[in-house]
Parts: sequence; structure tokens; C-alpha cells
Amino acid sequence: MKRNKNIDFKEICKGIKRGNIAALSRAITITESDKDSDKKLAFKILNKLNSKKNTLRIGITGVPGAGKSTFIEAFGNYLVNLNKKLAVLTIDPSSNLSKGSILGDKTRMATLSANKNVFIRPSPASNFQGGVGKNTREAIFLCESAGYDIILIETVGVGQNEINVGDMVDFFLLLKITGSGDELQGIKRGIIEMSDLIVINKSDGDNVNKSIKAKNEFKLALQLFPKKKSNWKPMVLTCSSIKSEGLDEIWECISEYVRLTKKNNYFQKNRIDQNKLWLLHVIDYSLRESFFSKKTVKIKLDNLIKKIENESISIFDANQIILSEL
Amino acid sequence: MKRNKNIDFKEICKGIKRGNIAALSRAITITESDKDSDKKLAFKILNKLNSKKNTLRIGITGVPGAGKSTFIEAFGNYLVNLNKKLAVLTIDPSSNLSKGSILGDKTRMATLSANKNVFIRPSPASNFQGGVGKNTREAIFLCESAGYDIILIETVGVGQNEINVGDMVDFFLLLKITGSGDELQGIKRGIIEMSDLIVINKSDGDNVNKSIKAKNEFKLALQLFPKKKSNWKPMVLTCSSIKSEGLDEIWECISEYVRLTKKNNYFQKNRIDQNKLWLLHVIDYSLRESFFSKKTVKIKLDNLIKKIENESISIFDANQIILSEL
Repeated sequence: MKRNKNIDFKEICKGIKRGNIAALSRAITITESDKDSDKKLAFKILNKLNSKKNTLRIGITGVPGAGKSTFIEAFGNYLVNLNKKLAVLTIDPSSNLSKGSILGDKTRMATLSANKNVFIRPSPASNFQGGVGKNTREAIFLCESAGYDIILIETVGVGQNEINVGDMVDFFLLLKITGSGDELQGIKRGIIEMSDLIVINKSDGDNVNKSIKAKNEFKLALQLFPKKKSNWKPMVLTCSSIKSEGLDEIWECISEYVRLTKKNNYFQKNRIDQNKLWLLHVIDYSLRESFFSKKTVKIKLDNLIKKIENESISIFDANQIILSEL
Repeated sequence: MKRNKNIDFKEICKGIKRGNIAALSRAITITESDKDSDKKLAFKILNKLNSKKNTLRIGITGVPGAGKSTFIEAFGNYLVNLNKKLAVLTIDPSSNLSKGSILGDKTRMATLSANKNVFIRPSPASNFQGGVGKNTREAIFLCESAGYDIILIETVGVGQNEINVGDMVDFFLLLKITGSGDELQGIKRGIIEMSDLIVINKSDGDNVNKSIKAKNEFKLALQLFPKKKSNWKPMVLTCSSIKSEGLDEIWECISEYVRLTKKNNYFQKNRIDQNKLWLLHVIDYSLRESFFSKKTVKIKLDNLIKKIENESISIFDANQIILSEL
């Protein structure tokens, strides 16, 4: 594949359809780019492709220390052994100040990243759009176009990211550990409400009994939540990622969820609802882009920012002046 | 104050200038409202007021369980005893699914909320703008217009909210507890980088030695971070909120920060930079509002959403069609 400026989008699309990892990576990079030429290219690529239909999108979240990488490594290898093609997208909670990355390193999932049926891609979390990589949906779409069956979307931390990822996945898995004595502490109610499965990780060695206790506590806690629209009753399971124990039960649970929600049509309806949301996000993003790239807007804005510096205009008056450009 | 529909904005402004809490509350509610009439009213109110200049905006964050409410109660009373008028804005991490609130209750800060020199206001966290209440800046401005000297902005959880709040405050305080053995676990690098002061809370009873250990660990960790633009060297202190110990040192640290950064002009420059960001946010918000309230946009969007439901159009084509309305 050419890496020069005159990239032929058809060539990239062909590569993606053949499952070429370099083409897929390149396309994701293009959708993440803020350059005007890349944006046009991204549009062409996305519009040219058709994503694979029979896929499964799984969101995986948990606080730092819950063992997400180890779990994804173990569960990912389990899925690959079932002959699944697996893509792992990690939302990287880069430091906003240093623009650096503390996680998101492929080396975190060594055996998995070496597998030819696995594609691993860390995405920087975008500040502006509320933490989720602004092109996570596009990355999912591209992976599905490249023939991946299962897309794992990993988020770090417990907050807005996860709530946004919930709008992009079919199934939401919350990874927890026990041992701190406050199993329910630190979890936002919204995160539990959106979980289809809570997995108590690191259930091995001295931790087994505590994990079972935590599992029972969560089961009780889940009863306090309203019934889900999917009609699915969220489950709690334990697992040991380092011993690869409990993965069968997790996969059985997810498969059962898919069977139920495809039968009651929630799965399909949910994806359509997510597409509507996706459209609104794309519009929102493009609207801002188009507006701020107008030459007249740029000039006015520069002037107004100078006035803000001199404190010679109020924020609200400045806003009115800019909006007259709409 | 009238509570009917024909609210006179001048009356609200007069009330705010007199420090009337009902008028202030009402104005904040109006700025939080999505109704068109309220938006116009909010603009008039905000444009009419001048906020007090010599104020101090302090962001306070910490994971659930760090004792933020107890700390704010103790520190708030300490500030009130120094004859400060204090406003506390809490960003409420409402569950996005239930639209409910699990925190943000005034009863959390019982003695403080009873004090006539204290104004406490929980704000719902807005989903769209990335977690921070979309009108937090406006609420700060209104509190300052009502004569409050110190504005504490409390955020819950460790994530995007805090990073956004960092763009609104003069001083950022991270509240931590010890005892879990993993003091550095679970904190995003960005949060530490933006902290001007880390307070190890609950430094009492059996916890004192652990707190001192944690304090030393943090001091070491802070040395790994690049120098701050403010030229301030972040500090680590311990405190006991329930015993009201360590508050003097915290206030002395904050005062020292203010002295330094007003002297080197960072304080003033930072506020101007924050105002520029505020303008961009206001424009961004108004742009979206104005665009989506256009009748032609509404009609087209309704049609396109139906096509998305039938899967008869791609997200990207639909976007192009809508954007032609700009």
C-alpha cells in the first residue's frame, strides 16, 4: 500500500475488504485525523465500505487495576480458539496535559497481538467529545468491514467514556476485582445499570472465597435495578484471567444474551438506535468543523478573542456576534 | 421574586446583586434550562451582571469514598470563620439511564448549608458536553456576581469532569485517602498533573502513619512531573476532616499559591485563557442550538432518521444532506 499523499481510497478499501491489517490501520488513522484532506478521504472510504453484518460488539470496562488487559488477553485467546476474528479497540485515557499515553500499549497483550486473527488498536481519547475517541464508531465500522467477527472495546476508568461506549456496543461487560472490601464503592450507578455481565476477575488463590462473596453481593445489588429494555437479566460471574478459568461461562453468557436479544429483536433495534445516535454525532462534529473553517468566522473569532484578552467585550456579546455568521 | 412566566430579568439581576439566594438559584436554573425562552432570559441576565473580581475558584476532586463532602463541610466552615462568603457547586454524576441523582444532596453538608454566608448548589452533569455541567461556568459567574468570595467546585470520580473543571478554576485540589495500599493506583496521570495540592484526607486514628507514608510517596511521585506553567510547586498535605485538623495548612498553601501566581501574573493570564475557552464553549453550544432549531433542519433530519431506521441510507450520506443546510 502506498504511504504517500496521493492515497487512492479505492486501494485502501480493497485492502480492507481483503482483511489487510495495514490498510485497516491506515483507514482508522485517516478517520482520526483533523486534516481537511484526510476528512474528505475518510468520508470516501467509509461511504465505499459495507460492514459485515453478523458481528458482535462487546464493551469491557473496569477501574485501573481490575486486570482488563490480562482479561482481554485470556478471553481474546479463548475467542480466537473458537475461530473468531477479533478486533480490540482500546480507548486510551491519555493525559490531556502531556498528550502522552500511559496505557494502550500493544505489549500489554503480548500473545494476543501476535495472533494473525487479532487486530489491536489503541485510540486516543478525545477531550472535546467527552472522552470517547471521537472515531470509535468509525473504527468499529472499519474493523467489521475488514471481516472481524467480534469487536472488543476496552475503556479505562469508570465514567463518561463507558456511558458513551454503551451507545456503541451490543453487550456491556464490567470487570471487577475483590479484595478491597468495598466492592460497591466507586462504581457509578449508571455503569452498573448498563452492564449485562459483571465479571469478578482475579478469582484465584486466596481470592476465591472473597470473589464468591463479592459475586453474591453484586447479584443482590443487581436486583435493585429496573428491568432492562433488552429483557436480559444481567449476570455475575467469577473468572481467573491468569488461569484462564471461567471463560467458558462468560462466553456462554454472552451467547445466551445474543440468542435472547436477536429473538426478541432488541439486538437489531438497539443497533438501529445506535446508528441514529451515530448520525447525530457525525452531524454535530461536521457542523462544528464546517462553521469554524469558514473564513469570515475565523477572522471574527480572532478579533473577538483579542477583545476577550483586553476584557473589552463580554463572552455573551462575543457569542452573539459570531453566531450572526450562521 | 415572581415565579411566573413573565420574570423580569432586571429584578433577578437586582436580587443577585443584593446577594439574594432565591434570585441566584433562579438564575442558575434558568441558565441550565433548555427552553428557548429561558435561553434568551439567561443571556439577558448574564449580560447585565458584572462578577466580583477578587474571587477564588477552587476545584476539589477525589474518588467516591475520599470524603469530599466531609472535607468541604470542614474546610467550608473554616473559610466562613475567616469571614469569606462561600459558594459550593457540586457536579452531580447523575445516572444517565435513570436521570436520577445519587449524590448532590444538601443534607451531605448539614452545618455548612445552614450557614447564611454559604450557598450550595448541585448541578446535574450534562452528558453531551462530556460530564461537566454545561453551565458550570455560568454558575460560577452568577455566584461571583452575588458577592461570593470563594467558589468550590466539587467533582466526583476521576476522569473527564475533573479535566474540564481544571479549565474553570484557579486552584485544583485532589483529595485522597490512604489505607487501600495502592495510593497511586486509579489516578489518571492528567489529574495529578493538574493538581496544585494533594490532600490525604482521613489522617486520623490508626490512619495517621499510613497517611504520612502516602504523603511522602506522593511527594516523590510529584517530582516526576514537569514544572507547572504557574511556576507553583504542587504540595502534599494531610488532614482530618472529622477533627478539623490540617485546615490551616491547606488554607495557607492556597493563599501562598494565590500570592505567587498573582505576583507572576499567571493568575490573571489563566483567567483570560479560561475566558477564551469559555467563549469557544458558548459558541459551540449556541451553534448547535441554532442549527438544530432551524425548521428545515428538523424536517430533513426527521426524514433521514426514518431512512436510517430502514437502513436505506448511510450515516455519511445522511450527514452530507443535513450539512447542506449550513
